[in-house]
Amino acid sequence: MNGTLLERARSGAGDEAIRAVARSEGVRPELLRKQVASGRAVIVQREGKRPVGIGEGLRTKINANIGTSTASIDPEEEVRKANIAEELGADTITDLSMGGPIDEIRAMILEATGIPLTTVPMYQAVVEAGSIKNVTVDRLIGTVRRHVREGISLVVVHAGFTLGMLRELASAGRVMGMVSRGGCFTAAWMLLHRKENPFISRFDDICEILADNDAVLSLGNPMRSGCIHDSMDRPQEGEIALNAALARRANDHGVQVIVEGAGGHVHPARIPEYIAHYKQKTDGRPLFVAGPLPTDISAGYDHIAACVGGALAAGAGADYLCYITPSEHLALPNAKQVREGVVACRIAAHIGDTMKYGLREGDRMMAVQRRARNWEEQFRLAIDGGRAREIHRQDNTPGCSMCGNYCALEIMERFVHEF
Amino acid sequence: MNGTLLERARSGAGDEAIRAVARSEGVRPELLRKQVASGRAVIVQREGKRPVGIGEGLRTKINANIGTSTASIDPEEEVRKANIAEELGADTITDLSMGGPIDEIRAMILEATGIPLTTVPMYQAVVEAGSIKNVTVDRLIGTVRRHVREGISLVVVHAGFTLGMLRELASAGRVMGMVSRGGCFTAAWMLLHRKENPFISRFDDICEILADNDAVLSLGNPMRSGCIHDSMDRPQEGEIALNAALARRANDHGVQVIVEGAGGHVHPARIPEYIAHYKQKTDGRPLFVAGPLPTDISAGYDHIAACVGGALAAGAGADYLCYITPSEHLALPNAKQVREGVVACRIAAHIGDTMKYGLREGDRMMAVQRRARNWEEQFRLAIDGGRAREIHRQDNTPGCSMCGNYCALEIMERFVHEF
Repeated sequence: MNGTLLERARSGAGDEAIRAVARSEGVRPELLRKQVASGRAVIVQREGKRPVGIGEGLRTKINANIGTSTASIDPEEEVRKANIAEELGADTITDLSMGGPIDEIRAMILEATGIPLTTVPMYQAVVEAGSIKNVTVDRLIGTVRRHVREGISLVVVHAGFTLGMLRELASAGRVMGMVSRGGCFTAAWMLLHRKENPFISRFDDICEILADNDAVLSLGNPMRSGCIHDSMDRPQEGEIALNAALARRANDHGVQVIVEGAGGHVHPARIPEYIAHYKQKTDGRPLFVAGPLPTDISAGYDHIAACVGGALAAGAGADYLCYITPSEHLALPNAKQVREGVVACRIAAHIGDTMKYGLREGDRMMAVQRRARNWEEQFRLAIDGGRAREIHRQDNTPGCSMCGNYCALEIMERFVHEF
Repeated sequence: MNGTLLERARSGAGDEAIRAVARSEGVRPELLRKQVASGRAVIVQREGKRPVGIGEGLRTKINANIGTSTASIDPEEEVRKANIAEELGADTITDLSMGGPIDEIRAMILEATGIPLTTVPMYQAVVEAGSIKNVTVDRLIGTVRRHVREGISLVVVHAGFTLGMLRELASAGRVMGMVSRGGCFTAAWMLLHRKENPFISRFDDICEILADNDAVLSLGNPMRSGCIHDSMDRPQEGEIALNAALARRANDHGVQVIVEGAGGHVHPARIPEYIAHYKQKTDGRPLFVAGPLPTDISAGYDHIAACVGGALAAGAGADYLCYITPSEHLALPNAKQVREGVVACRIAAHIGDTMKYGLREGDRMMAVQRRARNWEEQFRLAIDGGRAREIHRQDNTPGCSMCGNYCALEIMERFVHEF
């Protein structure tokens, strides 16, 4: 096949990846092809694995961030996290490793999983250069090339701001300023070198590399707010406009694009309008949202707060949610926290899909099995049936210890014919 | 002081409980008095303890259900649950014990706590009668009297349905039918005896008992839906109308009333309209909502799904949320699950209050401390700082293991003057 998936979709050619996604999503292949051609949906591919569709009309997808930091390095634990994330239903994984043998960890995760893997190449470039200042633009581009050649499906670049926008940020009156790590690395590099954003100046080169490997570009959300008191401001508006323009430019290179936005911490009442705003300004492109967290005081339980924000975001049209774990703002997540984060995010996506598309059959099937007290079927239908089974058996009682002999469902069953 | 708190509020008299609640809520005492007089807010009193205000214009409150079942009896564990619930910020506790020495457990919980305690007297009446059928109406009334005389602040009765409404329920086409335990006990009693709802026939007697002890009446939500495919139907509409009428009647006896409704499992997109509907039909009375769960497939993590539903409900005007624990639908919650349930519900109430009343100062303070990497202050401001501290230290590293040497906040700090 010639050209990238986007180019083929635009030319009207059939494509096996599009057909496979259409089948699993229950949508018409021709409709999905048009969505992909217009940039309103993307198909994330990984060689030899099931492609994943993200965008309008498709099930909301979720991503799990894993990876080492300089303070916590255990490659085997990262593989465990990747396995748990995939097992519990993450659609993609992002490896953010900055500690230990980064290439090896990435290879181990690729080897251990069957879902698309994302990276933020700036992270490894900073580690390998020894400092942000020492990163050369060629090293940055080289890291992007290396990652996609090794099989990375999605690459994040923080291209959405200029030196002028950093000056605007300084006077925006934010409580938290910039909190995006990739954004801070890029901003620090720009300020140290007094140069414009390297992802913009070398944007066409990056697109060529992605097109050669048919990888998807994810345009980062460096201006996202770091607390709910920081709201939509000039820097955020600037980022949206810039990312929207860059998305069109990437499409011209045959590269599919996801736009990250409306993530971080957002006033809960504003989440639906933010999502609508991003979608409208980016021509309906697939929107990837981190969180958003609708409160700042849930440390230790940010996965729960993010479930509220994520459900609201997905319900309003976000297509792709980045999970938040209980260790957000506190520590690198361990494998148990990855599991909790993935499950909370799947709940958010599911509730969001119910808001977006209407009631889902899985809920009705669960209710039918619940009424029948058919426990094994309930565990099969639950998002994390293993955990549900553990709790059900925690008291070592034969039935359900909640109501013991006074089960409302059993009582109802006895009398329902008399109702 | 003469009369009940409601009667004094109606007469325009000042009242220390109203003043105390007004102070802690930051509202004007005279405004609160009028709200109480009109039934739009209630003051829940417990002798010698801080009164709790629930209703329009007040902070959203949360309730934690505890209590034994016949399958899990450990009075000490119930006391631990009560202590944890109070410590983590529950505003009220409900003791639903049906196993073991119920009077003793209730006394132990009262002794161990300083917040209002609620009961559902039908539960104990069923246990002590030996069966639902053997419950006499006098026993039921006697149990209500005993509870409020012992210091119970809120009593739940499932008065909101008639035999005719049970027939409507049978033809309503629900997947789950009736799932309220108190509702099922009452319905079964009515069908076994071919008699109308005893809480309606003896409603005035119950009101007199509550008025004598100035306890608050909570009108249960027996017709709540047990899955999100069961939606607002004739039985639910009938319950709302009946509860609204009974609330007015209780007020005439000088009894303050909370209406339970819109709880259970509700299609997420419908939650705001349900809440508005209940509020409108019940003259703006304090609305107590269990959950609601916006999905059925989150078994093991229902506290997280309920946080989404609770936040949406509170944001739309619900005044009082009943927590859901991770063991919902599976087992009696243990102390750890009570903690998780309380925290998730507090997050829901807080997000709801942000939606209802605007941004809260606590979030801004947390952001300021987060930017300063002042960890102890963050733990102090977090809903469950103990848990946040544990996670922060899980890697035994000096700072935050999330980003190790590459902290975005530290990088920003170094360059912010150049932004």
